[in-house]
Amino acid sequence: ARPRVGYFYTGKTTIQAIGASIKNKKVKDYKSIPVLVKENTSVYDAICTMFLEDVGTLFVVNENNDLAGVVSRKDLLRTAIGKHNLEDIPVSIIMTRMPNIILTYPDESLHEAASKLIRYQIDALPVVKPKQKADNNQKENKYEVVGRITKTTITRAYVDLGNEEL
Amino acid sequence: ARPRVGYFYTGKTTIQAIGASIKNKKVKDYKSIPVLVKENTSVYDAICTMFLEDVGTLFVVNENNDLAGVVSRKDLLRTAIGKHNLEDIPVSIIMTRMPNIILTYPDESLHEAASKLIRYQIDALPVVKPKQKADNNQKENKYEVVGRITKTTITRAYVDLGNEEL
Repeated sequence: ARPRVGYFYTGKTTIQAIGASIKNKKVKDYKSIPVLVKENTSVYDAICTMFLEDVGTLFVVNENNDLAGVVSRKDLLRTAIGKHNLEDIPVSIIMTRMPNIILTYPDESLHEAASKLIRYQIDALPVVKPKQKADNNQKENKYEVVGRITKTTITRAYVDLGNEEL
Repeated sequence: ARPRVGYFYTGKTTIQAIGASIKNKKVKDYKSIPVLVKENTSVYDAICTMFLEDVGTLFVVNENNDLAGVVSRKDLLRTAIGKHNLEDIPVSIIMTRMPNIILTYPDESLHEAASKLIRYQIDALPVVKPKQKADNNQKENKYEVVGRITKTTITRAYVDLGNEEL
């Protein structure tokens, strides 16, 4: 019998094997902790939170902790150069709100999440779990935020892929 | 003779092949166009340029078009919430300046550029060519900016890697 070490047959080229390997990675294994603010948080306080937590995107939740909106550094910068008092404007005025938020899910592939970041030209996605109604188990359009996926997440995954050679 | 289609021997595992493939990609094949401003550009105009060009980082050049500094959306947001008149402050006051700028080069691997983005916690790298002195061909610490690599670049490369399966 011939030694099999180092030989493998997959019916795929190397390039195809790379693609398949990438598509096996899941959002839940790469997501980082989401930074949440309430709808009545002022733009000024949101900017402070962004610097303190060192993130580029905040997720806004309502009183039930359902995802209500997303605010990016770009949204905050646009507001900051306006002639407003930033302590008087709640983030709910400037946020992108449901249902216009692009979402990702724990079991989605990291590749699909990365594709959404490029397709919709955004910096971050909330990782969500749909909330179930207690009475009839039907899905509502209400989501709990359980993580975040950003271009930093994807850049780190890209670096890791290359380092797996070692 | 056995058909060789689909068989390959590389002495590497699939994971190692992925790593090697990633490290073959060069910055020059992925870089996008840099957005440049002059040192005396006001912070207000820099913010407008950032929105018009839809980028997250501006590169600042001196009167000889040498790279002098880098300004990020985060730098501009920090300045915008200060009690300053943004039209009176030149970007040269708030920029990260040479030699504290992390650089990448056309022939560097995209993987090394991605590693720098993660290691130094920055959003973008200027792609530079060293300028030669005319008289003695010695390198100076002066650089022409020929491109930019951002986390968006890396995210797009990650998406492309996965799509190569098709």
